[in-house]
Amino acid sequence: MSPEGCSFEITHTDLAGRIGRLSVNGRTVTTPALMPVVNPNLLSLPGALTPAEMRSDMGFEMIITNSYIIRKGKELKDRALSMGLHDLLDFDGVIMTDSGTFQSYVYGSGDREVEVDPLEIVEFQRDIGSDIGTILDRFTPPDVGYEDALAYLNTTMERAGASVPHKGEMELAIPVQGGVHMDLRTRSGAAVRELGAAYAPIGGVVPLLESYSYARLVDVIVAAKKGLGPAMPAHLFGAGHPMVLPLASALGCDLFDSASYAKFAADGRYMTQDRTLHIEDMEELPCPCPVCSRNDAKDLRSMSGSLRTAAISRHNLWVLGSIMASIRTAIREGTLWELVERSGATNPSMASAVRKLSDHTDYIEREAPRSTRRFMCVSDHSLDRPEFTRTANDLAERIPPAQKAFTHFIREPGASHRPHVEGSARAVHVAGGAVAVITPLGAIPYAVWEMYPFSQLVISEVDSLPPAMRSLYDSAMSSLGPDVCDLDEADIVNAAGREEFDRFKAALMTRMQFGSYEGRGADDILFGGSPDRIELVRSRRTGKLRNVKLPSRGGEHVLSLRAQDGLFSLKWKGAQLLHASTGGGYMRVIVEDGTGEFNAKGYNVFNKFVLDADPGIRAGDEVLVVDREDGLYAVGKAVVGAAAMIDAKAGIAVKVREGRDKALPDEAS
Amino acid sequence: MSPEGCSFEITHTDLAGRIGRLSVNGRTVTTPALMPVVNPNLLSLPGALTPAEMRSDMGFEMIITNSYIIRKGKELKDRALSMGLHDLLDFDGVIMTDSGTFQSYVYGSGDREVEVDPLEIVEFQRDIGSDIGTILDRFTPPDVGYEDALAYLNTTMERAGASVPHKGEMELAIPVQGGVHMDLRTRSGAAVRELGAAYAPIGGVVPLLESYSYARLVDVIVAAKKGLGPAMPAHLFGAGHPMVLPLASALGCDLFDSASYAKFAADGRYMTQDRTLHIEDMEELPCPCPVCSRNDAKDLRSMSGSLRTAAISRHNLWVLGSIMASIRTAIREGTLWELVERSGATNPSMASAVRKLSDHTDYIEREAPRSTRRFMCVSDHSLDRPEFTRTANDLAERIPPAQKAFTHFIREPGASHRPHVEGSARAVHVAGGAVAVITPLGAIPYAVWEMYPFSQLVISEVDSLPPAMRSLYDSAMSSLGPDVCDLDEADIVNAAGREEFDRFKAALMTRMQFGSYEGRGADDILFGGSPDRIELVRSRRTGKLRNVKLPSRGGEHVLSLRAQDGLFSLKWKGAQLLHASTGGGYMRVIVEDGTGEFNAKGYNVFNKFVLDADPGIRAGDEVLVVDREDGLYAVGKAVVGAAAMIDAKAGIAVKVREGRDKALPDEAS
Repeated sequence: MSPEGCSFEITHTDLAGRIGRLSVNGRTVTTPALMPVVNPNLLSLPGALTPAEMRSDMGFEMIITNSYIIRKGKELKDRALSMGLHDLLDFDGVIMTDSGTFQSYVYGSGDREVEVDPLEIVEFQRDIGSDIGTILDRFTPPDVGYEDALAYLNTTMERAGASVPHKGEMELAIPVQGGVHMDLRTRSGAAVRELGAAYAPIGGVVPLLESYSYARLVDVIVAAKKGLGPAMPAHLFGAGHPMVLPLASALGCDLFDSASYAKFAADGRYMTQDRTLHIEDMEELPCPCPVCSRNDAKDLRSMSGSLRTAAISRHNLWVLGSIMASIRTAIREGTLWELVERSGATNPSMASAVRKLSDHTDYIEREAPRSTRRFMCVSDHSLDRPEFTRTANDLAERIPPAQKAFTHFIREPGASHRPHVEGSARAVHVAGGAVAVITPLGAIPYAVWEMYPFSQLVISEVDSLPPAMRSLYDSAMSSLGPDVCDLDEADIVNAAGREEFDRFKAALMTRMQFGSYEGRGADDILFGGSPDRIELVRSRRTGKLRNVKLPSRGGEHVLSLRAQDGLFSLKWKGAQLLHASTGGGYMRVIVEDGTGEFNAKGYNVFNKFVLDADPGIRAGDEVLVVDREDGLYAVGKAVVGAAAMIDAKAGIAVKVREGRDKALPDEAS
Repeated sequence: MSPEGCSFEITHTDLAGRIGRLSVNGRTVTTPALMPVVNPNLLSLPGALTPAEMRSDMGFEMIITNSYIIRKGKELKDRALSMGLHDLLDFDGVIMTDSGTFQSYVYGSGDREVEVDPLEIVEFQRDIGSDIGTILDRFTPPDVGYEDALAYLNTTMERAGASVPHKGEMELAIPVQGGVHMDLRTRSGAAVRELGAAYAPIGGVVPLLESYSYARLVDVIVAAKKGLGPAMPAHLFGAGHPMVLPLASALGCDLFDSASYAKFAADGRYMTQDRTLHIEDMEELPCPCPVCSRNDAKDLRSMSGSLRTAAISRHNLWVLGSIMASIRTAIREGTLWELVERSGATNPSMASAVRKLSDHTDYIEREAPRSTRRFMCVSDHSLDRPEFTRTANDLAERIPPAQKAFTHFIREPGASHRPHVEGSARAVHVAGGAVAVITPLGAIPYAVWEMYPFSQLVISEVDSLPPAMRSLYDSAMSSLGPDVCDLDEADIVNAAGREEFDRFKAALMTRMQFGSYEGRGADDILFGGSPDRIELVRSRRTGKLRNVKLPSRGGEHVLSLRAQDGLFSLKWKGAQLLHASTGGGYMRVIVEDGTGEFNAKGYNVFNKFVLDADPGIRAGDEVLVVDREDGLYAVGKAVVGAAAMIDAKAGIAVKVREGRDKALPDEAS
C-alpha cells in the first residue's frame, strides 16, 4: 500500500455497519470513528483540551477543524500557511477540514462576513496541508422543496467538478446533499462516487438531529448510502450525539464529528450514554473517566469558567470515545443489533428510528454478514432483524415441501417424551412428521435447527415472549393442527437410526446453505440426490457432526461443519464438484486475469482484483474463486458482500482456505 | 442522631426504589450501594486492590467480608481478634460480615470442613468488630419444596432469636429465606422485621441469578419486601451482576454485594454495563475508567496472572460503581423506569423480568412518588408504569362523567383549526365537547392535560407509536364516534372566554388531585362547588395559572401551581378549609402528642413521630399534619409514602411548608 493517497479497507461487518481502516497520507484511522471538532481559537484557553492530548491520552486518530475559521483570522491564517495544519494543531493523526458551508447556512450565504469562494477555500485547505479537505457544497436543509434541492445539488456538483483540479495531493470530501428527497440523496451519492471521491460526508442532517427526526435520518442515510455504494467511507456530518451513533453505524456510517462535546460543556451539560445532565443538577458523577474518577460534581461546579468547560469537555469526549469503542466491539462480536435496540430504549424518537429499520430490511440484509456470534431476540423489534427475512426466504426457496417433514424418521406420535425445548423453540411431532417450532419464523424443519441463525438464538421461554413473537408462535403451533406432541431426540434415533437421520439432515443443510443451480439443489449436485452416498465423520469427543465425505469418490472430504455457526465450509473437492456442475456466476467471485494463480497457491483475494461476484454473496459465505473463463482457482470465505468486493479498491475480498495448488489435508477425525 | 446504632433515612423515591442514608456506628453509606466482597487472604497478592483504595479512589463506602474465612485461618483469626476488622482490612467505612451460610450451602452442611456453630459465628463477628454481622441462616435454594422451605425458615428464625443476645453492639443481619414460595418469603420478611432487625438481606437468590431466572427473582424480591416493609434497608444477597442492579433497585433493594468483580477478573472476564466480554477476545477496551484509559487490551493480556486479575478487578469495580451512581442519579431525577427499561433490552431473560413488573403494579404504585421530572413512553413496556394505573383509577373515581366533556365551553365542531398536538396526544372536538386523546389512557379530559403525568409526557408521534400504544390510541379515537375534529386552544377562548374556562379547569384539577371526602369533591369543599367563586392569579410573564384565591374569603390564597409537575401545593388557608370539612384520616399525617407544636412553627415532621397516615399518601403529596385529636398544625409535602412514614424510625416524613404559627405570605403575583 502506498503511503500517499486515501484508501478504505473493510475488515468486519455487522448489519450494514463495518470495521474499516481508513488510510490517508500514510496515517490510519479505525472506523467507525468520531473526530472531535477542534476550534483553533480556543486552544490557548487555560486548561484547554489539545489535539495532542486527544490522540495520546484518549486515542482519537482523526480530528476535524474549520478552514473557514482559520482563514478568517489573519494571524492564524499566516501561521497555518507557514507551519502547516499538523504542526499548527500539534496533531499527527488525520486532519479533515470543513469549508464554511455550515457557517454559510447558519448565517446566510448573502452575509458578506461568511462569503467564501468555492475554489479559494479548496486551495487554502490544500495549502495548509489538510489531509481531507471539503468542497464548499450547498447546504440543503429538510424544508427545501424538490426543485430547489435539485438546483442546490447541481450547484454542489458543479463546484465539486471545478474543485478537483485544485485539490493537489489533498483528498477531497464531496458532501451528499438532497435534503429529504430520497431519490436526490441517492443520485447525489452516485454522483459523488462517479466523480472518484474517496471520502463522502452525508451533509445537511443537523436540522434533522436538532428536531429529533431520527426516523427521517434513517431514510436519508440509507438513500445516500445506496448511491455511494458499500466501498465508500461515509461521514455523517455534524452528528455527534451519543444516542445516534450506534444506529448510524449500523446503517453504514463510518465517521462522525462532534462539536457538542465542547459546546455542551460550555453550557455545563454533561453527556451520558443516553442523555445529557446539567452539572448544576448533579449530586454525583456516574462515570469512571479520568475526569470523573478524580473529581466529584461539586469540584466541577466550583471550577472557574474555562477550567470547568475544559473538564466537562474531557469527560464528554471520553464518553463519546467509549461509545465508539463499544460500537466497534459490537461489530467485531456481531452484536450491533443488540446495541441499536438498546439505544432505541432511550427515548421515543430513537425508538421510532429503530422501528424504521424495518423499512430498510433489504438494504441491511445485502450488507449483513451470513452469521454472527450471538442472535438475540429481546423484544418484538428483533423481528426486524435481517436474518429473519433472509432465513424465511431461504426456507421458502430452498427446502422442497416434501422435505419439510420426515415421516419415515419419526415414530408415530402419541407417546409421552421429555420435550426437546430450548428457549421457546419446541420440537414437536405432527401427524407423521417432525418440525421444530420457532416463534418468529413459524414452523421450521427440525433438520435445519442447528444452523445459523437458530444455532445462535437467544430467546425467552414461551410464557415470557414479547407479544408479537408470542402470537407468531401461537399461530405456528395452531397451523400444525391438533395432533401435536413433544418430540424427544431419542424418537428419531429409535425410529430411523442416528446415521440415517444425520445423512438426511446433512443433505438438507447443504441445500439450505448453498441453494440450487438451475433447479438442481446443491445436495443433489454434491451427493447425487441420495444422502446414502454420504459418509459422516463425527467428533470423537462430542459425537457431533464434523465432516462430510463421499465414499463413491474414494472417501473424499467435501464439507466441514463450522462449529461457530453450524454452517458448512466447503473443501476443495466439494468446490470442484459444485463448480463442475454449475455456471452462470453461481457462488463465483471472478478475478482479474493472472491473479487467480496466486489464489491457487492459497493467497487471499483482494477487492481490487475482483471483476464480478454472485450478487447473493454475503460476508462469511463460502465462494468459488474463478477467472473470466470460469477456471477454478480456490475456495474460501467472503470477507465482505458481493457489492463491496466489486466496488472496493482496498482490502480483502476472500480469505482463501484451499487453492488448486494448495489443498488442505483432511482433518483428523 | 446518635453516632451508635443503625439507622436508615429515605430522602428520594422513584418507583419502589429510593435514595437512602444508612448509618451504622456513625459511618454512613448512600444507597442504593454495592459493597465489594473482600477476601482477606488475597489482599497480599501483587497489585491487589485494597479496601482503602476502594474507598478513597473509587468511593465505596461499605464492603463485605466473610467471617467464616477469617475464622478458618488461624493466623488471620488471631489478627482479626487483636486488631479488629477495620484495622485488619484498613477500611474506615461500614464493614459487613457474612457467616458461612453460603459455604455450607455450596459444600454441604454435612461437610465437617464448613461446620459452623450458629452462636459462635455471631460472637466471632461481634468480637472482631464487624459493623453488621449475619446470623447463620439456612440457605433455601429454589428447588426446595414448601414443607422443607418452611422447616428451613423455622431453623433460620430460631437461630436468629438465639443470636440476638450474643450480638453485642453489632447490628445483626437476618436474611429473608423461603425459597420460591412467595407466602414464605413475605412471612420471613415480616418475622425479620418483628425481631427488630435494622438490616435485612434477601438470601437464597444466587441460584436464580445463575439460571437467569430474573422474572422469578422479581417475584421473590416483591414478596420479601412486602414482609419487610418500606423502612427496612434491604440487601439482595449475592446479586452483583450489572444488568440486575437497576431492576432490583427499582423494586426497593438498597444494598448489593459483588464477588463477581474479582471472580470474573480471575477468569479474564471484563464487565460492561450489559454483558461480560473475555479479555482474550477483545481488540480494544470500550471503557474510560482509570484502568482502561491507561492500558489497552493487549497490555491487559500481557500482564502476569495476579496483576492482570487485579487490573480487570479494578475495571469491573469501576463499572459496578458507575452503574450504582447512574441508578442513584436516575432516582434523584425520577428516570429510573427508563433505566430499567433499557436494562430489559440487554437479553431475553432481563426482558421477561421487566415485563414481570406488570404483575406488581400495585406494590410499585404504593411506593412510587406522585410525580417525576420526566415521563417517557418509549415502548409498550411503558404501559406498565405505575403512573398509568394510578391515573386511570383517579380519573375513573374522581372525575364525574358529566365533567369529562365541556360542552358549554366549546364551539360546535366542524370548523377547521390548527390541531393542538403534542407527541401523540391530540386534542379533539367530539360532538359538542372536548377531550384530549392520550394514547395509553384513552380519552382524558382536556382540563387535566397539564397535570402530571401528562405534563411530563414524552411520547412519539402517532405514526410511530409502538403497537400496543397505537391500538389503544386507535380505540380511544374510535370510541369518540365519527364527529371528531381537531381542537384549537382558540376554540375554547372564543366560545367561553379564557377566564371562565380556566376557573372550570382549576376546579377539575383540584378534584383530580385531592379527590373527595364522603362523596364531596375537594373542589366542592374548597370552592363550594362553584368555580365562579375562584379568583385566578396568572404569571405576568407567561400568562400561565399560578395561584388560586377565594374572593369570598377576602381573597385568601388556597392553592399554588407547582411548575415542575402541574400539581397544586396547598396553602395554609386551603389546608384549613379542607381540614374543617373532612375527617377520618383524609390527607392526614397524625403525629405524636407535643410534636405538632414544632411543625406549627414550620419544622419538618420526622418519621419517628408519625403515628398514622392516610394510606393514599404518596411521596410528593400534599398532606395535613394533625395530632390524635385531629388538631391541624401544618401543611406540607410528603417525602415518603404513608407506609414508610409509619414504619420508619429515621428520616423526614413531611417537609412542612406552612404551619399554624408560620404561614407564608402570598406570593407576588
